[in-house]
Amino acid sequence: MKSEKHKRSPCPVACVLDILGDKWTLLIVRDMLFGRTYFNEFCRSPEGIATNILADRLEKLVHQKLVEKYTTTEIAGRDAYRLTSKGKSLKPVLDAVAKWGLANIEGTEAKLKSTGSP
Amino acid sequence: MKSEKHKRSPCPVACVLDILGDKWTLLIVRDMLFGRTYFNEFCRSPEGIATNILADRLEKLVHQKLVEKYTTTEIAGRDAYRLTSKGKSLKPVLDAVAKWGLANIEGTEAKLKSTGSP
Repeated sequence: MKSEKHKRSPCPVACVLDILGDKWTLLIVRDMLFGRTYFNEFCRSPEGIATNILADRLEKLVHQKLVEKYTTTEIAGRDAYRLTSKGKSLKPVLDAVAKWGLANIEGTEAKLKSTGSP
Repeated sequence: MKSEKHKRSPCPVACVLDILGDKWTLLIVRDMLFGRTYFNEFCRSPEGIATNILADRLEKLVHQKLVEKYTTTEIAGRDAYRLTSKGKSLKPVLDAVAKWGLANIEGTEAKLKSTGSP
């Protein structure tokens, strides 16, 4: 990931793609918008993200202050992840992407099915 | 690029990322929305796309029917590219991405400067 000091250009689209332009990062944001919290919950999403890719993307999302790590009393000692307000503000981007996909890609469905219980 | 037959999941976000989830494809769509037409015009955008990446992404965009190749009388024998109506329908996605970038990434500017005359 390029830092703010190494922008490819001042174009906001290019700068957003420097952070989110891959096949996985927005899916993790999607999962958090759906209320998923734990590493193994993200792993269970139907796309089957590899654990090394997930760990890398979570670290980058935390670095970009889109996601924060916290601890819950629910499962002691296990890191939990949630969107910051900056991360939550990506919802209109996700909505626009999902709307375009539903309108233009055959076989897409609005509701995500998990491959296992959370 | 995965074909429709090899979807990672039926999630529209995942399916859109299978097509557009990289650092370059949406920038080519952006350039076409700005009225750019020729291979060397896309090369001149400030992000400095490599010609092999540009050729690959154009081919994939044509394959996905987001872009069509045509010939102009303006420059005989040179291929020109333009968005199809499916490609143009990505404008709300670009707008949402640009709006988020402008609001959240320091140093971004709404107006794209070209590094050379078209």
